[in-house]
Amino acid sequence: MDLTSFLTSLGTSFAIFVILMFLFAWLSRKPGNTVIYYPNRILRGLDPWEGGSKTRNPFAWIKEALTSTEQEVISMSGVDTAVYFVFLSTGEAVCNVVILFPCLGKNLLGILVLSSLILLPVLLPVAATDVGSKLSINATSNGTFSDLDKLSMGHLQEKSPRLWAFLIGVYWVSFVTYFLLWKAYKHVSALRANALMSPQVKPEQFAILVRDIPAAPAGQLRKEQVDSYFKTVYPDTFYRSLVVTNNKKVNKIWEELEKYKKKLARAESIYAASKNTGNAEGKRPTNKTGFLGLCGNKVDSIDYYTEKINELIPKLETEQKATLREKQENAALVFFTNRVTAASAAQTLHAQIVDTWTVTEAPEPRQVLWPNLKIKFFQRQVRQYVVYIIVALTVVFYMIPIAFISAFTTLDNLKKLLPFLKPVVNQAAIKTVLEAYLPQIALIIFLALLPKFLFFLSKAEGIPSQSHAIRAASGKYFYFTIFNVFLGVTIGGTLFSTFKTIEKDPNSIVTLLATSLPGNATYFLTFVALKFFVGYGLELSRIVPLIIFHIKRKYLCKTEAELKAAWLPSDLGYGTRVPGDMLIITIVLCYSVIAPLIVPFGVLYFGIGWLVLRNQALKVYVPAYESYGRMWPHMHVRVLASLILYQVTMFGYFGVKKFVFAPFLIVLPILSLLFGFICRKKFYRAFQDVALEVAAHELKELPNMEQVYRAFIPPSLGSEKIDDDQFEDAQSHVSRAGSFA
Amino acid sequence: MDLTSFLTSLGTSFAIFVILMFLFAWLSRKPGNTVIYYPNRILRGLDPWEGGSKTRNPFAWIKEALTSTEQEVISMSGVDTAVYFVFLSTGEAVCNVVILFPCLGKNLLGILVLSSLILLPVLLPVAATDVGSKLSINATSNGTFSDLDKLSMGHLQEKSPRLWAFLIGVYWVSFVTYFLLWKAYKHVSALRANALMSPQVKPEQFAILVRDIPAAPAGQLRKEQVDSYFKTVYPDTFYRSLVVTNNKKVNKIWEELEKYKKKLARAESIYAASKNTGNAEGKRPTNKTGFLGLCGNKVDSIDYYTEKINELIPKLETEQKATLREKQENAALVFFTNRVTAASAAQTLHAQIVDTWTVTEAPEPRQVLWPNLKIKFFQRQVRQYVVYIIVALTVVFYMIPIAFISAFTTLDNLKKLLPFLKPVVNQAAIKTVLEAYLPQIALIIFLALLPKFLFFLSKAEGIPSQSHAIRAASGKYFYFTIFNVFLGVTIGGTLFSTFKTIEKDPNSIVTLLATSLPGNATYFLTFVALKFFVGYGLELSRIVPLIIFHIKRKYLCKTEAELKAAWLPSDLGYGTRVPGDMLIITIVLCYSVIAPLIVPFGVLYFGIGWLVLRNQALKVYVPAYESYGRMWPHMHVRVLASLILYQVTMFGYFGVKKFVFAPFLIVLPILSLLFGFICRKKFYRAFQDVALEVAAHELKELPNMEQVYRAFIPPSLGSEKIDDDQFEDAQSHVSRAGSFA
Repeated sequence: MDLTSFLTSLGTSFAIFVILMFLFAWLSRKPGNTVIYYPNRILRGLDPWEGGSKTRNPFAWIKEALTSTEQEVISMSGVDTAVYFVFLSTGEAVCNVVILFPCLGKNLLGILVLSSLILLPVLLPVAATDVGSKLSINATSNGTFSDLDKLSMGHLQEKSPRLWAFLIGVYWVSFVTYFLLWKAYKHVSALRANALMSPQVKPEQFAILVRDIPAAPAGQLRKEQVDSYFKTVYPDTFYRSLVVTNNKKVNKIWEELEKYKKKLARAESIYAASKNTGNAEGKRPTNKTGFLGLCGNKVDSIDYYTEKINELIPKLETEQKATLREKQENAALVFFTNRVTAASAAQTLHAQIVDTWTVTEAPEPRQVLWPNLKIKFFQRQVRQYVVYIIVALTVVFYMIPIAFISAFTTLDNLKKLLPFLKPVVNQAAIKTVLEAYLPQIALIIFLALLPKFLFFLSKAEGIPSQSHAIRAASGKYFYFTIFNVFLGVTIGGTLFSTFKTIEKDPNSIVTLLATSLPGNATYFLTFVALKFFVGYGLELSRIVPLIIFHIKRKYLCKTEAELKAAWLPSDLGYGTRVPGDMLIITIVLCYSVIAPLIVPFGVLYFGIGWLVLRNQALKVYVPAYESYGRMWPHMHVRVLASLILYQVTMFGYFGVKKFVFAPFLIVLPILSLLFGFICRKKFYRAFQDVALEVAAHELKELPNMEQVYRAFIPPSLGSEKIDDDQFEDAQSHVSRAGSFA
Repeated sequence: MDLTSFLTSLGTSFAIFVILMFLFAWLSRKPGNTVIYYPNRILRGLDPWEGGSKTRNPFAWIKEALTSTEQEVISMSGVDTAVYFVFLSTGEAVCNVVILFPCLGKNLLGILVLSSLILLPVLLPVAATDVGSKLSINATSNGTFSDLDKLSMGHLQEKSPRLWAFLIGVYWVSFVTYFLLWKAYKHVSALRANALMSPQVKPEQFAILVRDIPAAPAGQLRKEQVDSYFKTVYPDTFYRSLVVTNNKKVNKIWEELEKYKKKLARAESIYAASKNTGNAEGKRPTNKTGFLGLCGNKVDSIDYYTEKINELIPKLETEQKATLREKQENAALVFFTNRVTAASAAQTLHAQIVDTWTVTEAPEPRQVLWPNLKIKFFQRQVRQYVVYIIVALTVVFYMIPIAFISAFTTLDNLKKLLPFLKPVVNQAAIKTVLEAYLPQIALIIFLALLPKFLFFLSKAEGIPSQSHAIRAASGKYFYFTIFNVFLGVTIGGTLFSTFKTIEKDPNSIVTLLATSLPGNATYFLTFVALKFFVGYGLELSRIVPLIIFHIKRKYLCKTEAELKAAWLPSDLGYGTRVPGDMLIITIVLCYSVIAPLIVPFGVLYFGIGWLVLRNQALKVYVPAYESYGRMWPHMHVRVLASLILYQVTMFGYFGVKKFVFAPFLIVLPILSLLFGFICRKKFYRAFQDVALEVAAHELKELPNMEQVYRAFIPPSLGSEKIDDDQFEDAQSHVSRAGSFA
């Protein structure tokens, strides 16, 4: 790729970004669009615009994002989101440190000057965005980008003593990264503790999840068994238990009922509308009862749905009773009257045989994965390893298609393989655009297909909560992107020619990585630019959800509920964002010496990302769950893994430069592992378990235990009528046990 | 080594054993020796002889040992000892299974006959002793031992289809071992649970050990800090806390005081005795005050010691007060009013920063390693790894002296190196004896020096309890014996000649092991025989403690206390026994196909061992601590490790025999690892922590918390006078805090 096509790519990306920015500024001021641009505020009953005025500065959102505090983010979007911003700031700060690095070889005085400029934002990661982008502008405005490339290690002579400066630079980057990660871990740990010690009553803090309950002794009900077990151990603090039931059938009936209720509401709304527009009588809507409403008898919709609903209600009630009675499974939620007991019970061994009565923290009610709860201890282990093997195979064998894509999607190859495209492709404009985007688009589409598959696999492991499954999927996705996108694309190009070298000497893979990095620099440069200019542009402007919403509103939605469903935003989805961000950090770190131009882009990526997502978190996305920052240790370990990859690559690159002091770098990966070990020992367990000193903080009020308990009843079992009757029945079962058998 | 010297070795060993047995039968009946042969019974206030009569059968102890129940062992010697017997029975049973194995190649019918004979004792490990020894007698009486050697795999042709039988044999041995280990693990787990749920109040079950307490806030005492922290978390069940103090100085004074008290008692006793024997006035004893009582002024002992004691008592009191006030350390014992809370508190995370307020189970008062308690979290980690490195270096570099010993101590080498020994050595009788014993004695002495060093290293890790340190030392010793004695001696002989082979191809080490095993078979055979005949003979007869006791009684002991100290037995010392037994299991397993003669010796080793130690456990040794069977998982893992070594060796040996189906054996080590993984998951955590269902069992009476608390006060701080004053003071410190600063 030459300079022209690179600049074209960059230019168009930037143009798109600017257009989308203005589009956002314009569209977000229209009152009809508030539900798209401010749904989180609306759902929380806040005024969409803080000042209440539409005539404000179109770029006010930037100021709002910059001035928003962490506490605001937590209250609007939860701890998990706040932790994600800590991660973004750390990424930003790391990139800022690295930007120093290429200058080292040139001018040692410059370091000191720049250090003073840079170290400040390093310590104030939030403010870093501005300074970072200013710097990168400086860097590019000083000359063409080949000037910046001259700062790279590639321009130094072999064995040059100036390599010492680079070696020191690697140490500098590593140590600053350790420092930043340490600070961040401490900060996130405090965030988590604060959230957990909140004086508000949260149901999941009063419950534990018990799995692998052994078969009940003959003549004893599951519920009796659970109750008596926990009453013995916790005579004073045990409240009651909720045995998990197999809700598959009752859920199906309930969903059907809900579907008909919605349809009835829609039919009534259509009927009401027809009264206003046509004749006073109105026209009663009809539908066909057959497949997809396309065939079968034509019936009056309102009558038909009412009848269906009346049929389903008693059916649901019968099924609810049957489920509660007969479909109890080997898992239960156990409730305690205080947080300390619940937190302590979730961490302690209860049974002498370790694979029975296993306990964990109860997940939030909204994120329990009910069907997974019944899976047994060793089956979970087996499932886990099976999933690991599948993922490992996927990671290894996807390398092949990715390598093909990376080889095919150069334009010359495409012309060779598909000669009929030649006339189209040879046109200058199309050629430039295609050359600039084709490989990146292919890659991005390819990567978009994967997360769902990985999430499915993670759920299959038997994980009990959604947030945990998302964390697991995110980890898998990270390994995938690093192995396939980064290593795959980097090595892929040169792989086939050098395959024999590797076979002879597996150690040469480090050298291979170091030598093949330069060739793919522009590829990744464009990749990063495309990702942040277009990605964040689309993110901010929300063009796609806007269009979909307006189409739905105009043609499909008839009731208020349907309208709300049309604009209801998803969550931030940081489970897939994080691996993407990790890839950028890895790319920026590993290319920082070979193609230093990539560093300002890294700074921009995290800076703009921080800004845009801050806006989205505050105004758009609604969190789907709260895991109190349990994602952080994963982020931490992965930043560290990127750093180690960087250190190893640098070691290889120093080897290529025949620098005799390169072995000094061997210390660094060991230091990184040590740092990771210390962090893990010092902080990690507090992310797995709730520390008792945290749980022991006082509550605002005495918890309403009935309410806590009811929060965990699945909606399909939760009708008021059933509650009073059946659950009460199940609790005071001893006297009526006879009627159950 | 030829047959003659082997038989000489065996014969003399056996003769020594028989002599010692008779010696035991004769000596143990003398009333003056009861304190040597029945101290455990005497200390528990039981009659030394069960029947109360001296005229019983001299071999009654065998019957008594065989008929004793596990419950008796637990009540006389604790759970740890009972677990050791489970281990011995398992070893016995494994050897019994292996004895079948060499016969497989010869006669497949024989298996079935023998199976019925053997499987019974496999299932009844306790009864196995008899049948096992009967079998070995059969085996040797049927012919010379070369007959039995013909059953070995060595006599089969290369690629012979009969190797199939051996391959099945390896599977059979492995699966029976899995079965036995599984049964044993289950059994030991139940033993542990039973002991922990005992209705008796045990102080350590009401306490936890808290370490790494952060610096107290200004103006707060350590005790206030600890109390307020735990009162917040456990408002209802917290009883009080005991801050660990630096007792070095106070201990020294206290020990001095105790020494003088003993000396005073001794002097008084001498004075009283002189009154009876000499003149009515008596002769007041005198001593010199200088170095070791050899120089300096001559003084009246009784006056001198009384004066010293009177000097030390106020000094001790002052120091006790100073210690309690000023020498508080960053660790504490925290007491709870019920077992469940203590068990649960010992397992849960208390502080958000994980390396502060770390909690563990409190060790028994008698086995707390006080000086280790103050060592900080990361220092413990560092110490641990430093110790591991030292041990690894020891294990690797001791191989060199061991290899030298094994090369030197053949008689021919000795003659070459020390020619002046020639005339002595050439005499037939001496030659035979030397040839038979020299290498083994060298090895045994060598090994006896190590455990103390390893125990010292384990304590240096910062482990808080003696039993844990002994476990850790025992593990290190195991690795040492396996690597050095077994692998060292086996490979050592052939090492230097084949060193170049290994260098070229590291995989050949398995083949090397397989080929060099046969050459060292007789060495290990004699080793095993020596170890059990002479070792257990000495163990049972207690000749050495008996002689020492009688000398002391006659010439040194003047007071009752001194006499008791002279006969007071040690504990069973299974910490060093287990690695020795493990070495035997490894040897028996790995040699079972090469020199099947070793198997009956293995059976005998465990059979006689079980019998002799059962007697010793019931009558002699007094347990020094109780860890509720926490040694078991270590034993389990190590038996499994021996099994894996055996499986790998067999794989190598099948390779030597050029058997094409040898790869079938690769499955076995994987299965063993899997088995170990499952056992660990299913049972292990219940050995680390106390399961709450176990701790929740009811107590016989309400615990006397004051007594529980006092059990943990070190004797040097424990004088009654101090207690009432100082400890009370420290508890209700808030009102008097001013006087402390």
